[in-house]
Amino acid sequence: MPESWVNLAERIGSDLHVDLSGPGSRRAVLIRALRDAVRDGRLAPGTRLPPYRSLAADLGLARNTVADAYAELVAEGWLTARQGSGTRVAERVASPKRPRTPKPAPARPAAPAYNLRQGTPDAASFPRTAWLAAARRALGAAPNEAFGPGDPRGRVELRRALADYLTRARGVRADPERIVVCSGFAHALRLLFAGSRGAGGGVLRGPFAMESYGLGFHREILESSGVRTVPLGLDEQGARIEELARGLKVRGVLLTPAHQFPTGGPLHPSRRAAVVDWARAGGGLVLEDDYDGEFRYDREPVGAVQGLGPERVVYLGSVSKSLSPAVRIGWMVLPEHLVDDVLAAKGEREAWASVLDQLTLADFIASGQYDRHIRRMRQRYRNRRDRLVTALAERAPHITATGIAAGLHAVLRLPPGTEASAVKAAAWQGIALDGLAAFRHPGAVMPAGDGLVVGYSTPSEHAYGAAVEALLRALPPSDGEAGPADGETGPDH
Amino acid sequence: MPESWVNLAERIGSDLHVDLSGPGSRRAVLIRALRDAVRDGRLAPGTRLPPYRSLAADLGLARNTVADAYAELVAEGWLTARQGSGTRVAERVASPKRPRTPKPAPARPAAPAYNLRQGTPDAASFPRTAWLAAARRALGAAPNEAFGPGDPRGRVELRRALADYLTRARGVRADPERIVVCSGFAHALRLLFAGSRGAGGGVLRGPFAMESYGLGFHREILESSGVRTVPLGLDEQGARIEELARGLKVRGVLLTPAHQFPTGGPLHPSRRAAVVDWARAGGGLVLEDDYDGEFRYDREPVGAVQGLGPERVVYLGSVSKSLSPAVRIGWMVLPEHLVDDVLAAKGEREAWASVLDQLTLADFIASGQYDRHIRRMRQRYRNRRDRLVTALAERAPHITATGIAAGLHAVLRLPPGTEASAVKAAAWQGIALDGLAAFRHPGAVMPAGDGLVVGYSTPSEHAYGAAVEALLRALPPSDGEAGPADGETGPDH
Repeated sequence: MPESWVNLAERIGSDLHVDLSGPGSRRAVLIRALRDAVRDGRLAPGTRLPPYRSLAADLGLARNTVADAYAELVAEGWLTARQGSGTRVAERVASPKRPRTPKPAPARPAAPAYNLRQGTPDAASFPRTAWLAAARRALGAAPNEAFGPGDPRGRVELRRALADYLTRARGVRADPERIVVCSGFAHALRLLFAGSRGAGGGVLRGPFAMESYGLGFHREILESSGVRTVPLGLDEQGARIEELARGLKVRGVLLTPAHQFPTGGPLHPSRRAAVVDWARAGGGLVLEDDYDGEFRYDREPVGAVQGLGPERVVYLGSVSKSLSPAVRIGWMVLPEHLVDDVLAAKGEREAWASVLDQLTLADFIASGQYDRHIRRMRQRYRNRRDRLVTALAERAPHITATGIAAGLHAVLRLPPGTEASAVKAAAWQGIALDGLAAFRHPGAVMPAGDGLVVGYSTPSEHAYGAAVEALLRALPPSDGEAGPADGETGPDH
Repeated sequence: MPESWVNLAERIGSDLHVDLSGPGSRRAVLIRALRDAVRDGRLAPGTRLPPYRSLAADLGLARNTVADAYAELVAEGWLTARQGSGTRVAERVASPKRPRTPKPAPARPAAPAYNLRQGTPDAASFPRTAWLAAARRALGAAPNEAFGPGDPRGRVELRRALADYLTRARGVRADPERIVVCSGFAHALRLLFAGSRGAGGGVLRGPFAMESYGLGFHREILESSGVRTVPLGLDEQGARIEELARGLKVRGVLLTPAHQFPTGGPLHPSRRAAVVDWARAGGGLVLEDDYDGEFRYDREPVGAVQGLGPERVVYLGSVSKSLSPAVRIGWMVLPEHLVDDVLAAKGEREAWASVLDQLTLADFIASGQYDRHIRRMRQRYRNRRDRLVTALAERAPHITATGIAAGLHAVLRLPPGTEASAVKAAAWQGIALDGLAAFRHPGAVMPAGDGLVVGYSTPSEHAYGAAVEALLRALPPSDGEAGPADGETGPDH
């Protein structure tokens, strides 16, 4: 029974446990214990063992006992001893025997050649140098208490920087006291909805209206919390807010007003006002998912609906599109009446988002680096959008790209009935992307038509041109035109 | 209705929305919009406005219109214009009018002079320089894909570093494929238990046994997931594992084998074996909370129970005690049969722990800095423990400190019936700490006696001596001795 662990080796620069229990002489037990440690890989090849005198003192054994054990293990080939280099674990020892290697990870689809799935920024553009400089400043300036248990709201430095930024750049009525930092949009939804049997008690009860096209995992979070979701129709002016007023019995509505996801239009001004009026009149709540509001390329960018009714709107954002999903920082700007409930759901012990990253992001924003990065990326994504639109105009003029004034994706409108085969043709061209159908609420009554949702932010800069070429080959031909002459769209087409 | 936002000012180095809708001439509307932006604080004092020509071009207005608006606002005192310095927001403008300031944060108790609550490391000892150096190396070496969407297991670099470290230092049978990175112990418990109405579907069902003294919020996480908890008795050999075998109908047991929390003893060797035997015999599961296993000061440190039965034990750890709770990184080493379920609960979109911190921690461990930090802190905490024990022996010899061979806290055993008044006396001395009663499971049948749980890791180094002095003043007198001569323990005593 492996008990009586002994701390062998602070002096080899690392901790190691050697089991000295069990039957037999001290010498035999030590030999077995060291051999097991080498065999298991706990003592790596090349590791230098402590001098036998020190180990003997540490373990309370006679020096001879340890010296004999070392000699035996050298004789057996487990250890090597050389003048001046001390006693080391032999390099030729077989590679460590891992505890039963588990079966390989569950199979995932092979990575496609071109990823045009929406939702992630160009990972190659993460501003590593500027981020590290901000980290150096932020960690240098942070008070000691920053490294202790945190405020469940998040670091005040970040909440202040966010309040300034969101007020200035997104027209949000933000106050640091009403901001709660979280690890992303999904975490925010969980904090708001997770039911009493779930993670900390639900703040909001259903049912909730959602746009009839959106991200399925948002709906899943609400529904797994026992919140029924009701789809809201979409037309060219965005979500049909009038359906709320017409008697949908819902507690609130989840919207993407700046850039409807995925169809891409902004919510019409009259509807922006109408949804706030609706919420004020009936005590409803608007959840505003501002997932890519910083990225708009043409005139008339759209500010946050939250600015129209800060006491009826929860504004939700994150750095997942603007910077990187690897940072895991998001935020809620809450109506005053929800702050305490959300903090209670979060709990004192659930700071979730790394405080080190929070401090770094606060500096990154306050020093202007965040604005600079967004401007740089906006320019880059605008250029990608333009290349896509130009290529379509020149070579597939029967396909219209919509939702292109903003965001990180476009919707290519397809002839009716061709979406599924276009997605397949794209896969055949090595492209990963989704059709509009993938985002449809199961209860949606008005289909948005056929279309491909093309995330142009995801490929790296050098791969983008080839990705667009491949996409062009996957598009359905215009009416009256034959299929692709070279048959490259494959047998499924 | 604030619509038709216009992007004013990329060229002032930041984004700003100015509302140009509404009645009146273009000039009047622009004046009002800029005034509002200054008054709301969206344009901060000192901000330089774009030259009127550029702004006119941006907004599609006549140059005169913008020049007139600037002149008017300068006349009103909102802006200042100086040769060579351009037009700026006036410094004397009243501080921004925040949207309704919410009521102050809920009152919290004033910070005590000395924090002797258990559970957090010395925040002043966070290794800022070494951490930043690791971050620089890690972010420099990371592949681009690290900044994209992550593996729900966590970064492979970190899982590899953890597998090596845990195998070597804690006797864990770790394999990178069976490690799941999370944001801390509570997050791990939520992933394991959160019910189907909660965050992503529960992996484990109850009931579960727990030690009859422990952290209340662990119990709350299980019970809020619908998992009934059953207290397990404690004696001088740790949790009474024999109660499991004697027919407690539980699915598993949550234990702190290396250093029972809070009473401080290790689980007896025979019970370590017994709990694994129990789990093997009946398909039970052991959750091993190794919350401070790295910190042991005397002989015979205790390895992980997980090493005895990796397929029946979930090993749980984090950097919250070893490094800082601000880092928000923890880990589970899972039995093979639970890996897929836990990953499903976590979800592809829930990487939670910052990838930047994961990469940095991987380097911090692999480069030996983590071992070095732990050795340094072990020395520091051992010294604090020794000072406490010495002070007690000299000046309060009737009080015994127990659970002191390891960890970041000690339990001062008190005469029966004196705990509550000692906690009050400590508060009177400006000390925050808890009595044993604060950790008692409501169903516990065997009380652990009276005691103070003294976290000696929390104060900063320079405050520690004064904290111990204050603590000595708060301790109950020995039998036959009068109360503290100076009456400093206050009126409640």
